[in-house]
Amino acid sequence: MFGYLNAIKTRPGHREEVVAILLGAVEGLGEVGCRQYTVAVDPDDEVTIRVTEVWESEEAHRASLELPETKAAIARAMPLLSGEFETAATEVRGGLGL
Amino acid sequence: MFGYLNAIKTRPGHREEVVAILLGAVEGLGEVGCRQYTVAVDPDDEVTIRVTEVWESEEAHRASLELPETKAAIARAMPLLSGEFETAATEVRGGLGL
Repeated sequence: MFGYLNAIKTRPGHREEVVAILLGAVEGLGEVGCRQYTVAVDPDDEVTIRVTEVWESEEAHRASLELPETKAAIARAMPLLSGEFETAATEVRGGLGL
Repeated sequence: MFGYLNAIKTRPGHREEVVAILLGAVEGLGEVGCRQYTVAVDPDDEVTIRVTEVWESEEAHRASLELPETKAAIARAMPLLSGEFETAATEVRGGLGL
């Protein structure tokens, strides 16, 4: 399994809107090989979103980016982001429910 | 829901042993309010473990630290760690399966 740890910064005042967009696109992910897609926010600022993902394979993750609902969510969120984005890939060994 | 993002460094040569200890203690966590407990490793080094957690409440997380199996796992893992440990708390808004 493959994981991604992402830190996404929004423009001030737009974090809740981006959280809602991300959560609105979650439903279909389970059908394309996503095991976890978790959306959290930093308590210490008002602009950072942390998305942690677990995928069956790198191919499943790549394929998810081609889904119409994923593309639509990215298009809606993009203007609300600051442009600061960090991502790190991991090798997931297991865990509760995995 | 509350989240924790942890980066734990092991002593060289002991990462797999610590991963096994962490995964061995996962079973009981679901019964005490843990929603996700995911163990991953960094592909770019041989000592970093990333544990991402989601809990129903901060109280549930604190209570889990008092479980005999948690205490035993911590005692077994401790001598294998380098001492470098980073943790960040998050507010979890939702996600796949949450």
